[in-house]
Amino acid sequence: MAGHTRERLLVIGGDAAGMSAASQARRRRGPGDLEIVVLERGGFTSYSACGIPYYVGGVVADAAELIARTPEEFRERGIDVRLRTEAVEIDLDRGRVRARDAEGAERWEGYDHLLIATGAVPARPRLPGVDASNVHGIQVLQDGIDLRRAVERDGPRRAVVVGGGYIGLEMAEALVTRGLEVALVDAAEQPMRTLDPDMGALVADALRGVGVGLHLGERLEGFETEGGRVTAVRTSEGALPADLVVLGLGVRPASDLARAAGIEVGATGGIVTDRRMRTRSERVWAAGDCVETRHLISGEPVAIALGTHANKQGRVAGINLGGGYATFPGVAGTAVSKICAVEVARTGLNEAEAAAAGFAFLSAAVESTTRAGYHPGATTMRTKLVAERRSGRLLGAQIVGEENAAKRIDGLAIALWNGMTVEEMTGLDLGYAPPFAPVWDPVLIAARKAAERVEEDMRACEAGG
Amino acid sequence: MAGHTRERLLVIGGDAAGMSAASQARRRRGPGDLEIVVLERGGFTSYSACGIPYYVGGVVADAAELIARTPEEFRERGIDVRLRTEAVEIDLDRGRVRARDAEGAERWEGYDHLLIATGAVPARPRLPGVDASNVHGIQVLQDGIDLRRAVERDGPRRAVVVGGGYIGLEMAEALVTRGLEVALVDAAEQPMRTLDPDMGALVADALRGVGVGLHLGERLEGFETEGGRVTAVRTSEGALPADLVVLGLGVRPASDLARAAGIEVGATGGIVTDRRMRTRSERVWAAGDCVETRHLISGEPVAIALGTHANKQGRVAGINLGGGYATFPGVAGTAVSKICAVEVARTGLNEAEAAAAGFAFLSAAVESTTRAGYHPGATTMRTKLVAERRSGRLLGAQIVGEENAAKRIDGLAIALWNGMTVEEMTGLDLGYAPPFAPVWDPVLIAARKAAERVEEDMRACEAGG
Repeated sequence: MAGHTRERLLVIGGDAAGMSAASQARRRRGPGDLEIVVLERGGFTSYSACGIPYYVGGVVADAAELIARTPEEFRERGIDVRLRTEAVEIDLDRGRVRARDAEGAERWEGYDHLLIATGAVPARPRLPGVDASNVHGIQVLQDGIDLRRAVERDGPRRAVVVGGGYIGLEMAEALVTRGLEVALVDAAEQPMRTLDPDMGALVADALRGVGVGLHLGERLEGFETEGGRVTAVRTSEGALPADLVVLGLGVRPASDLARAAGIEVGATGGIVTDRRMRTRSERVWAAGDCVETRHLISGEPVAIALGTHANKQGRVAGINLGGGYATFPGVAGTAVSKICAVEVARTGLNEAEAAAAGFAFLSAAVESTTRAGYHPGATTMRTKLVAERRSGRLLGAQIVGEENAAKRIDGLAIALWNGMTVEEMTGLDLGYAPPFAPVWDPVLIAARKAAERVEEDMRACEAGG
Repeated sequence: MAGHTRERLLVIGGDAAGMSAASQARRRRGPGDLEIVVLERGGFTSYSACGIPYYVGGVVADAAELIARTPEEFRERGIDVRLRTEAVEIDLDRGRVRARDAEGAERWEGYDHLLIATGAVPARPRLPGVDASNVHGIQVLQDGIDLRRAVERDGPRRAVVVGGGYIGLEMAEALVTRGLEVALVDAAEQPMRTLDPDMGALVADALRGVGVGLHLGERLEGFETEGGRVTAVRTSEGALPADLVVLGLGVRPASDLARAAGIEVGATGGIVTDRRMRTRSERVWAAGDCVETRHLISGEPVAIALGTHANKQGRVAGINLGGGYATFPGVAGTAVSKICAVEVARTGLNEAEAAAAGFAFLSAAVESTTRAGYHPGATTMRTKLVAERRSGRLLGAQIVGEENAAKRIDGLAIALWNGMTVEEMTGLDLGYAPPFAPVWDPVLIAARKAAERVEEDMRACEAGG
């Protein structure tokens, strides 16, 4: 096109969100129309951070398997990936970013469109000893490589995992798989606080069952070191000997760079965007763990670091940057995890979250089997639903079970997404055959129980009124 | 209550629908208020007909395991179950049913409310030889017991299964498991006609892979017999030697009794009911395989014999008979099945059904993995979506894969149920972790592909217009 000037898209961060966006934008706009430059601080692109525990545990043999696409593959598609290059300042007025390479050399990179996909920063307690060589954070792929090397090289016997969230538990499993004696420390009285206590207790039982020592309700107070290495983890209840420490204390959005530039950051610490992933600053977009999004049930902004959201948001940003139209509607808070044989899943609001969001609610939990009771391999799973009083609208669901249990959360998440009531759900036409479900699927049994509770509550209200 | 007369509920048929209804009615109305009498032609109550192939295959050891609740258990709950008692006539004017016991003795049983739950009748070709002792239908539990006994006692070497639907395929698998050489005959060019040809072809490959001889596009023409036993099955293409024949030709609603009484029966052959399971005749209800229901996507009446519908409809009838309020909304046509390692699932309309219902549609099929590609146990599955042109509304879905593939149909069935478009579905918050799904779940990948096709089609229309 005569007089047409090529535009430049600058992406900060070469993982899920950034590379999804770059790929989508490239699909819609060729290199003659849009130059795409990606600045990545680390040495890899597009890897599965969620796969790190499986690499450490040895379930995945080679770290390369976690890499979905290499920088070379992106370059072949006309995406200029610059590794070990960190963005250190955004200059909104001039539309440029100061980038520092591995040698410390700096230069300004201009942009017509900027996408911030800086990810998340793991929480790291400011305690003496935290920087010892045998204290491992788990964030980037290199962390996983370092940890596995330490396990294989140093032959540690005792590990302490700090933090009982998904990553902490998956790391505990990985280290148990590696033959280590593992202690798990968490300040809360249950692991996996995204579950209600009755469901979390089942996870705790499972962890104990595989030999993980649970130190719940214990606060991390410090590290005992010797020769630059931690020898014990001090908690509010005593000292736990450790040859190896893994920190799994959760993450916060990596939004400092954006905030420093004057880009709006919300109360969650995540960058604020609209549903097309545009920030409040012109020509600046953001996606992935560094942004906040809307929780579809509570209506509140939340920052949830999860690869699947990062990929979706990156795709949406990329389609829009490429001249298309796409939106990211928000999240339902769905998560699944597997700790040895135990499968755990949740979506929507748990009881505490429902209360905090101002909902009056009822809960119903049922035990049922994953397959027809007479079919080999049938195991017991517990399904819990949280429903709004009166309306009966599904607000949340939790599952703890074994093989074939957890992925049932998808159906519940979709019911939730569509605002279904538990009564409506009792009629759902779900797949039935003996190898897959009892004649009443656990999801339907839970819906029935919840619907009964809603009805009883309604009658009690009417009688009382 | 003074002057209160006890009412009588008469139930014809003591399987899923009838016994669910009886149980629900009993929960809400005690024996002093409602007498419940069940007439059951056979010798069992509430068994899993869907479990019969697994009993024949030896996966389930004992037929008793398939019985959810015995007549004695129902009697303890105040439900008067009369086995080997057949209802032979309904007299609507006088509100009574003529019942014949095992000895042939007849008597009239009066009712205040009648529930017809007579189930389905298997298709049985009127061909010479069909009544030979080694030709087995599979409908009631006794059929399964007889077949397994024949397999164990007579040691047949070659079996011919007639009919390539779910039951036919599951029986073929059961007999392969038992070490028989199995041939499958179907007049259609593919097994499992509820799938599109491209998906059915995968099922055919799987059957061949486990050694089932497929005789597709061959019409059943007769049986060769010797001494009262079938020795070969004659098809339009030749003769297949057989020591054992299993008929899996599908079923039709057992509505003759109702029709003879003047109760309305629809074009599908199923008894017509409203959403509370009331027939058009006063005080007469019906539920289970003998009724027709509404297909939620096509809007057409359909008769689908499936235990999960029978249970739900029975529950709905029982709640209403008990003085409560419940409705059966219809079905989405969801089905799952497992043929050896291959899992098959479908919901909504396939391409032929969508065309017949008058929809303009597009299809998209994707191959993806059940888990993260790097996670052990990840297998390839094919997911196909059928979406309405322009609106992009999901009309149907099909899955063929291996372990952990098929139950993903539930999420698709719930999306369908809620009228979601494939574009909306791309944003769904589904459970992600490497042991459960790739970062883009197969359902999302299929939705993306379908949404792209809808968009392309729209652009092509606009450009063309």
